[in-house]
Amino acid sequence: MTTLPVCYQKLLKRMREVNLLNTTTSILEWDQDTYMPHAASAYRAEQLAYLGGRAHRLFTAGAVAELLAECEQQGFAPDSAEGANVREWRRHYDRAVRLPASFVVRFGRAKSLSYEAWREARKQSNFKLFKPHFSKIVALVRQKADYLGYEASPYDALLEAYEPGARTEPIAQLFAELRPAIVAILGPALERSASLPKDLLQGTYPVAAQQAFNRRVAEAMGFDFTAGRIDTTTHPFCSTLGVGDCRLTTRYREEDFTDSLYSILHEAGHGLYEQGLPPAHFGMPAGAAVSMGIHESQSRLWENHVGRSLSFWEYWLPIACEYFPNLKQFTAAQVNAAVNRVRLSFIRVDADQVTYDLHIMLRFDIELKLVTGQLGVPDVPAYWNEQFEQMSGLKVTKDSDGCLQDVHWAGGGIGYFPTYTLGNLNAAQLMQKARQENPALEGELKGGHYQTLLAWLRQKIYQEGSRYRPRELMERVTGESTSIRHHLEHLRGKLAEG
Amino acid sequence: MTTLPVCYQKLLKRMREVNLLNTTTSILEWDQDTYMPHAASAYRAEQLAYLGGRAHRLFTAGAVAELLAECEQQGFAPDSAEGANVREWRRHYDRAVRLPASFVVRFGRAKSLSYEAWREARKQSNFKLFKPHFSKIVALVRQKADYLGYEASPYDALLEAYEPGARTEPIAQLFAELRPAIVAILGPALERSASLPKDLLQGTYPVAAQQAFNRRVAEAMGFDFTAGRIDTTTHPFCSTLGVGDCRLTTRYREEDFTDSLYSILHEAGHGLYEQGLPPAHFGMPAGAAVSMGIHESQSRLWENHVGRSLSFWEYWLPIACEYFPNLKQFTAAQVNAAVNRVRLSFIRVDADQVTYDLHIMLRFDIELKLVTGQLGVPDVPAYWNEQFEQMSGLKVTKDSDGCLQDVHWAGGGIGYFPTYTLGNLNAAQLMQKARQENPALEGELKGGHYQTLLAWLRQKIYQEGSRYRPRELMERVTGESTSIRHHLEHLRGKLAEG
Repeated sequence: MTTLPVCYQKLLKRMREVNLLNTTTSILEWDQDTYMPHAASAYRAEQLAYLGGRAHRLFTAGAVAELLAECEQQGFAPDSAEGANVREWRRHYDRAVRLPASFVVRFGRAKSLSYEAWREARKQSNFKLFKPHFSKIVALVRQKADYLGYEASPYDALLEAYEPGARTEPIAQLFAELRPAIVAILGPALERSASLPKDLLQGTYPVAAQQAFNRRVAEAMGFDFTAGRIDTTTHPFCSTLGVGDCRLTTRYREEDFTDSLYSILHEAGHGLYEQGLPPAHFGMPAGAAVSMGIHESQSRLWENHVGRSLSFWEYWLPIACEYFPNLKQFTAAQVNAAVNRVRLSFIRVDADQVTYDLHIMLRFDIELKLVTGQLGVPDVPAYWNEQFEQMSGLKVTKDSDGCLQDVHWAGGGIGYFPTYTLGNLNAAQLMQKARQENPALEGELKGGHYQTLLAWLRQKIYQEGSRYRPRELMERVTGESTSIRHHLEHLRGKLAEG
Repeated sequence: MTTLPVCYQKLLKRMREVNLLNTTTSILEWDQDTYMPHAASAYRAEQLAYLGGRAHRLFTAGAVAELLAECEQQGFAPDSAEGANVREWRRHYDRAVRLPASFVVRFGRAKSLSYEAWREARKQSNFKLFKPHFSKIVALVRQKADYLGYEASPYDALLEAYEPGARTEPIAQLFAELRPAIVAILGPALERSASLPKDLLQGTYPVAAQQAFNRRVAEAMGFDFTAGRIDTTTHPFCSTLGVGDCRLTTRYREEDFTDSLYSILHEAGHGLYEQGLPPAHFGMPAGAAVSMGIHESQSRLWENHVGRSLSFWEYWLPIACEYFPNLKQFTAAQVNAAVNRVRLSFIRVDADQVTYDLHIMLRFDIELKLVTGQLGVPDVPAYWNEQFEQMSGLKVTKDSDGCLQDVHWAGGGIGYFPTYTLGNLNAAQLMQKARQENPALEGELKGGHYQTLLAWLRQKIYQEGSRYRPRELMERVTGESTSIRHHLEHLRGKLAEG
């Protein structure tokens, strides 16, 4: 092993310090979402603002610019860990130095307070409580885009944080192609689902039984509970708090076990990616997930391609019956049909695979208009409700079923939503490739064995960290960049299934 | 309101930054004790070492020395918030600058790893797993005492961290007086308790019912759950993670509800002190607890003087019966006798009020010998077991019942134990004064009303923060410094009670 140049070692040391601060921030945020008492929120905002500001100052120091420039002269191979680290540090650095430290502190504090306000607003379904915070967030996000700079659209500058290299225009085009194709599937899908009894699986599923069953499924998938855990939050998420520390969260509805189960399949999909990243490069680009569109492909792959399938229920139903006696009355085909039931509904996270991306397109449209100033925050509820009714025929009667339902805007995450649809497309594309390269896969999935699939994903995706850009990674693994084709084939296949 | 001098404002700003780091450390430690997955421990140690090192560097910077010297010229009244802050900052600063930053980082890392090893060692009752870590801790603690400096004993330097102004020799004298007095009470107390059925209250007390009852008691005491919570750990504790964020922990034994109940009375006693400190001075000496011996007096006061009394059970037994039907067979006097049963036993935290301080004296003796080099870590189990048998007649057969039982040494907290006995003495002294100054108090306690007692403690102790030194505070409130008299009177009173 050759010794790395001093400039690289120095830069690595600095980045590890930044990462210690960032993972500490993740711990404080996780606690805020899970256990923190309400009265603690103002001071917690101070703590988070301080840690964020300090990390930003360390990362944007003049010394970093000098070391980066020196490292760029070292001729690291582009697909080496060092090459990838330097490339991504440069990308992050160039973005970060455009944001003044005082702005980062201000944004951090606003996000934290806005998050608390949103929780209360959603609980009371009272947009007014959230409005002043949301207005502040949008103003700050627009200012952020201006600081970051962009060519075609301010939205490009925001997208770049979640999906490096992605641009607004091609995504708008992808969505424009996808929309009519989904609508074409939606009609027959709704018709077929109409014959399925509504709420077929409704029953009483004690939270403790759900927790035990979910854990068993996550363990079978390969999620390592000595290095992770599951807690309860309003909005499920997956967060890495350090080496060997991946936290999943979900929520429970006593009358419907599928809500928490599919959340856990989803979040454990994220968790497998996090746990499969190369630990030697923890927190550095070579050891970090490449983009949200790829991250979301992993959650969707496990949730929908593995979990919402007949082979899944053929294996898991007898086991589920041990935890939930109510399920004994059903066949695997009935449960599978129920969890694939297509219907127009208010809540994105409850949406089926066919309508899900329509929810995303609505949010993308609103975000784009907010960021370009075509829509003001006070008009969001009315615009949402009007657009939603046009799309679904459903009338939103409370904002907790509408524009207050998601955490993203409260947390300043404008630009994130499109990556969900990219994730759906990537999931289908990767799963198709996994099946093609592993002919025995379907048989294994029927037997509840996930090792081959996990090993393939580890090798193709997880181990790569951010060595390649997302588009390049998709091309290397599947032979093409993200396309709508495989997802549509998958949906049509389900429709034809029976 | 006069404007504060610039030097003071600058120093305050710096101290607030240090406090942001310290409270962040508390969050990470709380998480480590409650929810953190095992595989996360090595990286968590890095995070804690980093935060501790950074806080130490900020606190010990040359600028602080200059600002402190300037502030000391301002002539702040000694009992003003500013005067107390400057006095205590000086005390902490002088101690802190004697510790090199690299030592603080090393100590932080060692403590974190040692804590994990202790957890496992205690679980397996295997001293060998803990031994190398404990040896390292003792070596570091001895080095720390040398860095800090001392006049009479290296143990003085350690005590000072927990009980400002206390010295080894007077404590040894206090203990030497206390010991025969306790032994004199012990004989008749054991005799009386021998007639009480052993494990009278044993039964089945579901954890959820214990949690609900404990919460109700803590709420009645005045603990604010919008600004605090209770979680589960091996070793109960109370920790403040920020403004409005006081976390208590306990553990549960299904067969014995009194274990978790008295833990919660104890920890909520600490919590009331923390929640009652003046929030305007959060994290600064004027808004911080004055010493561990005073802190422990608050936990003991609520646990033993309020909770282990006939008046407590006269009020709470009918309510407890709603949660624990098993208790319906008992009278308040029977329950009170059971929770005051005196017996020689292995575990300090399970010890009754009479024998408790004997456990402390054993630890004080061992700590003193470890720190002065008269005893080596490998010899601790044998020495412990021999001394313990001499004191109690009981033979220790596993180290989890002996020298592995407490968390303190694993966490580097040598010098802490004596403050438990100071706390017992102070509790009795304060409670005697509270009764004297509030003649209606006993009647209120019988009725489950704690407002008068809490208001008195808030005014006399909590609101004062660290305005006075611990000895001075005891003298101001009770008219004398810490004495063994009131505690012994209290014990003799219980013995005479019936």
